[in-house]
This record gives sequence, structure tokens and C-alpha cells, in this order.
Amino acid sequence: MKDRKQLVVSALKDGTVIDHIPSKSLFKVISILGLDHIENQITFGTNLVSKKLGKKAIIKISDMFFKNEDINKIALVAPQAKLNIIRDYNVIEKKIVEVPDNIIGIVKCVNPKCITNNEAVITKFTVIDKLAVALKCHYCEKITNQENFIII
Amino acid sequence: MKDRKQLVVSALKDGTVIDHIPSKSLFKVISILGLDHIENQITFGTNLVSKKLGKKAIIKISDMFFKNEDINKIALVAPQAKLNIIRDYNVIEKKIVEVPDNIIGIVKCVNPKCITNNEAVITKFTVIDKLAVALKCHYCEKITNQENFIII
Repeated sequence: MKDRKQLVVSALKDGTVIDHIPSKSLFKVISILGLDHIENQITFGTNLVSKKLGKKAIIKISDMFFKNEDINKIALVAPQAKLNIIRDYNVIEKKIVEVPDNIIGIVKCVNPKCITNNEAVITKFTVIDKLAVALKCHYCEKITNQENFIII
Repeated sequence: MKDRKQLVVSALKDGTVIDHIPSKSLFKVISILGLDHIENQITFGTNLVSKKLGKKAIIKISDMFFKNEDINKIALVAPQAKLNIIRDYNVIEKKIVEVPDNIIGIVKCVNPKCITNNEAVITKFTVIDKLAVALKCHYCEKITNQENFIII
């Protein structure tokens, strides 16, 4: 029975575990963090049972440690995400993500007439509500909110 | 030490394991099989060491069993992929993927003037070389080959 239950995915020696990602946001988180273009060993689990989120996803990335400004970008799609920083199999630090003050790129402006939707201009928003996550466009001043987030 | 090495991802009771996917093709395989839109529990590992492929990825999908015609679609991006069909923790069947005779959708035609690149027409190819994977367009007869595959 031991053999039958042997797992392919090994425990993380050093790296970052991102837990409590809503399953529907897993691939957005992967894309925002650029995990589809790195060489590090990564394991993902999705549609795992979670009391809080219904269905959650988890990502473990070997030998990778994020800057706060990078990891906070995922707050838009996974506001309840929790990070464990692992060194030699031990959790040495826990972090939660925080919605940043400004968002550059990542989200499309809701206004079809906005310059960012018509020319090669990167979107730029001020976060005017961190709880409901409402973003005010730097160019057209229209409000993009969670209901109409389109991740670029 | 036992606790420290405890794994989050549980062994597969029933379902399909897809092994020997080149790491660079993992997200294409996910997209081709539509795994980003299903509710089943899934675990992925990528950039794992492989003697054959250099770096490989593996996918385990709970309670999902594929038709040959569906799984063969991944032959375009993961020609060496091997499947294990699992029932009650036991491998009850092994399969390899086979390049199909025809490909509908999935790949973009290399010819910019092809109707499929200019109107809402789904691409359709006859596979004229299964080893090198060369595809002849049903509409414009131009050859799309592995070097210029763009997955739709």
C-alpha cells in the first residue's frame, strides 16, 4: 500500500508556497507571476477542497522568492492568498498579499474609448477602493471594478 | 522529519496520469484538453528532471478518462506523452498518444491569406507526415509544420 500511495511531487526544500488561491484564478495567477516561462520546478494543485473558498488552488515554486511588489499583483485575482516562505523544509516566514496603491498593466481598462484600448499604451490605475478593488484609470479616469476585470 | 516532508498533493485513486510532457508544452496541453475549465481535482508538476526530455511535466486528473480522439490532440505538442489509467490506486491501462489523421482546430494555418485567418472558419488539416508532424490545410493546401505551429 505504501508504494501505491507514493507521490510524484516532492516536498519543497526551499521556495515559496502560495495557498488559498481561488481555483478559477489559478491560471491568471500563473500568468501574472510569469510562472509559465520559468525554469524552476513548480507543482500546482487545483480544485482542492477549501472551507473558506469552496475550491482552492495551491502553487509550490522551488528556489523562488518574490518581492512584495510582485506578489501583490495577484491580490487582484486572489485577494485571500497566503504565502509561506520555505527554507530547508521549514516555514521561515508567512505573508499575505496586499492590494497595491497602483496597478500598471495586468488589467484592461473598461472604457473602450480609452487610449490604452486603442494605442500601444500600457494601462495604469490608481486603486481607489482596496476592499472592493476599484481601479481608476490614469488616462481616462473611468472606474474598472472586480465585476469587469479582464486580465491582459 | 516525517511531518516536514508531508505532501499536499494526494495520490490518485481514480483518473488519468499524463507523463512525459515536455515542460515547454505543459500549458498548451492544459489548453488543448480544456483542463483550465473543469472542476476535477488536478495536480501538475513541471520542470521535473527527465533523462529523455531534459525537463518534463506531469499531470494527474482525478476521475477523468479521455477518449483516444481527444487525447491524441496533444500529440502535436507532446508526442512522447504516456498515459496511465488509474482505478483504485492501480494502473489498469497504459496508453501512448498517436498523431491523428486529421486535425480540426488547435493549430493556426501558416498562410496569412488562408480563409481560416481571415474569416470565422475553423482550421482543418490532413496530417501528411506523422513523424515530423506536417499538416496540409484543407482550404489553402499550404503545409504547416512543427517549426511554425501556433496553437489557437
